[in-house]
Amino acid sequence: MSFTGGYPRVLGLVLSALLVLSCASSQQPGAEEPKANGQAEASVDPLPSWNDTATKAKLLDFVGRVTDPDDPGFVEPEARIATFDNDGTLWVEQPLYAEMAFALHRVKDLAQVHPEWKTQQPFKAVIEGDRAALMEAGNRGLVEIVVASHTGMSTTLFDTIVTQWVRDARHPKFEKPYTELAYQPQLELLRYLEANTFKIFIVSGGSVEFIRTYAEETYGIPMERVVGTSIETRYEVQGGKPSLLRLPQIDFVDDKSGKPVGIHKHIGRQPILAFGNSDGDLEMLQWTTVGSGGSRLGLVLHHDDAEREYAYDRESKVGRLDQALDVAAPSGWVIVSMKNDWKTVFTEE
Amino acid sequence: MSFTGGYPRVLGLVLSALLVLSCASSQQPGAEEPKANGQAEASVDPLPSWNDTATKAKLLDFVGRVTDPDDPGFVEPEARIATFDNDGTLWVEQPLYAEMAFALHRVKDLAQVHPEWKTQQPFKAVIEGDRAALMEAGNRGLVEIVVASHTGMSTTLFDTIVTQWVRDARHPKFEKPYTELAYQPQLELLRYLEANTFKIFIVSGGSVEFIRTYAEETYGIPMERVVGTSIETRYEVQGGKPSLLRLPQIDFVDDKSGKPVGIHKHIGRQPILAFGNSDGDLEMLQWTTVGSGGSRLGLVLHHDDAEREYAYDRESKVGRLDQALDVAAPSGWVIVSMKNDWKTVFTEE
Repeated sequence: MSFTGGYPRVLGLVLSALLVLSCASSQQPGAEEPKANGQAEASVDPLPSWNDTATKAKLLDFVGRVTDPDDPGFVEPEARIATFDNDGTLWVEQPLYAEMAFALHRVKDLAQVHPEWKTQQPFKAVIEGDRAALMEAGNRGLVEIVVASHTGMSTTLFDTIVTQWVRDARHPKFEKPYTELAYQPQLELLRYLEANTFKIFIVSGGSVEFIRTYAEETYGIPMERVVGTSIETRYEVQGGKPSLLRLPQIDFVDDKSGKPVGIHKHIGRQPILAFGNSDGDLEMLQWTTVGSGGSRLGLVLHHDDAEREYAYDRESKVGRLDQALDVAAPSGWVIVSMKNDWKTVFTEE
Repeated sequence: MSFTGGYPRVLGLVLSALLVLSCASSQQPGAEEPKANGQAEASVDPLPSWNDTATKAKLLDFVGRVTDPDDPGFVEPEARIATFDNDGTLWVEQPLYAEMAFALHRVKDLAQVHPEWKTQQPFKAVIEGDRAALMEAGNRGLVEIVVASHTGMSTTLFDTIVTQWVRDARHPKFEKPYTELAYQPQLELLRYLEANTFKIFIVSGGSVEFIRTYAEETYGIPMERVVGTSIETRYEVQGGKPSLLRLPQIDFVDDKSGKPVGIHKHIGRQPILAFGNSDGDLEMLQWTTVGSGGSRLGLVLHHDDAEREYAYDRESKVGRLDQALDVAAPSGWVIVSMKNDWKTVFTEE
C-alpha cells in the first residue's frame, strides 16, 4: 500500500475522532432514557417523542406550509429534499464515531496477520491502546489506520466486514448495538417528512459505504440516498468475475464545504430542510437556507442532555458545535435541545 | 482558465464526438417513423411499441420472474435496480451527441465576448466549422472546448444555459427538439419497470448536470437518479450568498470501466438489469450480469434502422458498438434490433 495524492485531503472527521481518544474519559456519563409518559395523542401526533415546545410547532408549521398548495410557501413534491447529517444527528457519536471504533477494531483484528505492527506506529499504539503514541503519530498515522481498515479489499468484502462489525459491536456506555442508538424522535421525523412526500438523504462526513450497510434497516433510508465520504475504487475482472477494488486513496471528503458539493453531486437540488449538529454541517445549513428565499428550514441538534445521552458543544473533539452555534440564531436556524425538545431519546424496548 | 491535473483523464466521449465531425455526413439518412398500426392490445400490453418478438417475450418473462415471490428468480423490491445508458439508448445520439452540439453552440455564442478566438485554435475551427483544424487540435483542443462551454460559472447559471439550449435546439435531421427524440419503446419500458417496483437510474458518459436538466420531464427519471460524468465544483459564499462554482477540472468520467464505479458510488447495489448500446456500456453490462448468479438481464440496443433512425455499429465514431457486440451472445445479453423489435421509434404526435 502506498500513499497517494489524495492524502493531503485527510478527513477532519478521522482526525478529530482519534484526537478524542485522549479525552474521551472526560465525557459525562448519562442515565438511560426515561419512559414516555403516553400523554401524546399517538394516533394523530406524527411526532410523539417530541415535547410540545416551540421547536415542534416550527417543524409542524414548516411541513404544513410547504405541502399546502394554497400557501405562498408551497413547494412542489419533487423539490422537497431533506438532508440529515448522520453522526450526532441520527445516532450517537460520543465518545467516538462508530466508524472510528470500527477502524480501531479492524486494525487490532488485522494485527494477527501483521506481526510487524507490534513494533510499528501507529499500529503499535492502536494494539496497545496507547493514546499518547497515537496522538504523536498525527495525521499520517491516522491515514494509515484508515487505509489499513478501509481499503485493499473488494467492495463486497468490505460490506461483509462492516456488516458483521455493526451487528456485533456494542456501544461502550449504553452497551447496545450502535443501530439501537438511533434517536427515536428523528426516526419519527423521517417518517413524518416521508409521509409528506419529502425525499430524505443522509449527508455525512462518514464514509458512504459504512453507512449504507445499516441505513435501510436502521433509518428506513435506502442505500442510494446516502451521501458521504468515499474512497477511490477500480473496476477489475479477474478469472471472469468482475469486482471493484477499494484503493488506498480518498475520492471525496463530504464534510464542511464538501457537504454542499456532495449534495450537488448526488442530488442536484438544494435541500429545503437540513438537520445537523456540528460545525461540519455549517455549510450544508447555509447552502440549504441562506439567500435561497422561499420556505427553508435549518435545524441544529444541541447535545445538552448529560442525563439521557451526552452534553457537549464548543469544546468537544467529536461533533464540535461552536461556529455553527454562533451562526444559528442570525441565520434563523432552529436549535433543537435534546433535553427540552425530546420526550424520549432512544426507541423504547 | 488553466489546465489542471484532471485533464489527462479526457472524456473518450468528447473525443469520439468531435472526431465524428469529420464523418457525420457519411451517416445514412432515414425517414420518419411509420405510424403504429394499433394492433397491440394497449389496455393489457405494457409495451405496445415493442413488436411481439422473442426480445419482448424475454423482457416480459424476466420481469415476471423477478417479481414473482414463488419463482426461484424472485428479487426483493429494494434490489430491483435498473440502469440505462442515455445517448443512443434512451434518445438519439447521431450524428453528434446532443451535449457536443451544445458545447459547439456555446463556444460560438461565447466567441462574441472572446474576439481573440477568431485567431485562436480550437475556437477558430469551431467558429468557422473547420473540421480538419478541429481534428488537428486533438485532445487538448477538445478539452479547451469542454472547459470553455461547461465551466467557469455557477451551477445555477449552467443549469439555465443548458435548459435554454435544450429548449431551443433542433436535431439536424429530424428538425425537432432533442427531447422529442426519446425512444417511445424505452419510455414504455421505463414505466413498465417502475410499475414493477424497479428503481431506474440513467448511467451515462455524458455529464450529469446536462442530463439532469431534462431527465425528469423527458424520461420521468428524477434528477437524483442520474449518474454521469462530472466536473469539480467549489463551494463559495460571496456577498452573503452561497454558490457552487464549476471548476475547469474533470471530477469523474462515467464511461467504460467508470460505469461500474459510478454505479457503486451513487447507487451502492449491482443492477439486475442494464441496457446500453455501445462499447462504453460493456463494463456496466458485465458488472450487472457476469458471475452474479440469480436473475440478471443485459440488453444492447442495436441501431440497425437507417429507415426510421440510423444504422451503425462497429465503424461508427459516435456510439461505436464493436467489442460489446462480440461479447453479447456469449454473455447471454439480449441484442435488441431497433428495426425488428420496435414497432415505433419515436412518440407519435
